Amino acid sequence: MSIIQDSPLTRKLSAFVALSDAELAVLDRLHQRRRSFVAGRDLVHQGQSDQAAYILSEGWVCSYKIQPDGSRQIVDFQIPGDFLGLRSVLLHTSDHSIEPVVDIQAAEVLASDLLEAFAHTPRLAMAVLWAVSRDEAMVVEHLVCIGRRDANARMAHFLLELGVRLALVGMGSKAGYDCPLTQYHLADALGLSAVHVNRVLRQLREAGLVTFRDGHVTFDDYERLVALADFDPAYLDQTGPLLK
Amino acid sequence: MSIIQDSPLTRKLSAFVALSDAELAVLDRLHQRRRSFVAGRDLVHQGQSDQAAYILSEGWVCSYKIQPDGSRQIVDFQIPGDFLGLRSVLLHTSDHSIEPVVDIQAAEVLASDLLEAFAHTPRLAMAVLWAVSRDEAMVVEHLVCIGRRDANARMAHFLLELGVRLALVGMGSKAGYDCPLTQYHLADALGLSAVHVNRVLRQLREAGLVTFRDGHVTFDDYERLVALADFDPAYLDQTGPLLK
Repeated sequence: MSIIQDSPLTRKLSAFVALSDAELAVLDRLHQRRRSFVAGRDLVHQGQSDQAAYILSEGWVCSYKIQPDGSRQIVDFQIPGDFLGLRSVLLHTSDHSIEPVVDIQAAEVLASDLLEAFAHTPRLAMAVLWAVSRDEAMVVEHLVCIGRRDANARMAHFLLELGVRLALVGMGSKAGYDCPLTQYHLADALGLSAVHVNRVLRQLREAGLVTFRDGHVTFDDYERLVALADFDPAYLDQTGPLLK
Repeated sequence: MSIIQDSPLTRKLSAFVALSDAELAVLDRLHQRRRSFVAGRDLVHQGQSDQAAYILSEGWVCSYKIQPDGSRQIVDFQIPGDFLGLRSVLLHTSDHSIEPVVDIQAAEVLASDLLEAFAHTPRLAMAVLWAVSRDEAMVVEHLVCIGRRDANARMAHFLLELGVRLALVGMGSKAGYDCPLTQYHLADALGLSAVHVNRVLRQLREAGLVTFRDGHVTFDDYERLVALADFDPAYLDQTGPLLK
């Protein structure tokens, strides 16, 4: 039991539901089919059908759509404790592609595994519904921001959101976090050029707000960065379990 | 049973799961607390907590966020068969507001009702998860479009998506559908001014593609409109039940 109580998914779902031993055991069974995937090779292709979903336990992943002009829009990044392709396993064809940013570890989950888990504990169904709703709230937040934040505020918001998400699974704090993303990832996620990303990061660093260097994000002045980004983490819903 | 088999939610969930009589009865119980709401008065306020969710059975609703400058970004519209505020009942505080576009009928659903329903039938939990995933796929599609479609293509895509969603609940076809939205709704959803919306609708009408007039959308040339919008409805996942 002790292993699974420390799994990132367990930590994350515990923000929504106080998990019983029986529920922890069901979560444990969902982690049975562990697999490794190498960086840069798609787990799921846009337009693919009959695929599995995964629970990410180690590493970073990005979800993206290829646009008709061949450019890539990154929709979101997944970190340990996140589902990969849960939407893809429920819809007939995947509406997006999923690519490991680094080598990853993930547990394969079929629709039938979820159905069986939900049959054992409906509270787990609510918890997964919460996780999906939280993912949707993030995409809505990104949608609403796009028009209104300038490049500096968008970058600040992005780095702060990742920090709060990572803190939930024990991988970050208000001091900072390790981050394997390249400037190309940031560019494709924020709709900026790599050159522009470079300039924005330099400006934020020179203003004494945040430093992203050598695979690590350091918050140099967390509160001022929050003010610049107009960042309110309420949509990430990490204030403690709603279901006791 | 016959009433509920005809409910919009039943029609919609049937696109994902072939519902048994027992499952239909559980859905029926979710519709017990029927309520009416008048147009223009918020059901849920952004930042509110401890609210209920609703299943919309009649009328149209919009979900929006108020931005710091006081302007309104409409995130999506809900039509019969859609959940209202499901995300709000799962997250501690609502990340958006919900306002009836016209007078509506909706059934109130508490988190405890959902938990009880899921305990009776885990397949229903999967179906609700599917509905939420489909909502997320829509927001992702909107996010990815914003940068790449011009105003005419964005409007065309918007009117086509609504048509496909309405067709699923028996309220539209490739000929067209009744639509109570004003030009202000379209403007706040598409990030255009009302004057611009007016001009775009005139251009689409004069090109013989689609006419939106007197509360009705008429598709004058469906296939050409699809080509203009580069519209692929796969993300709406309406090709028949995945769970038999």
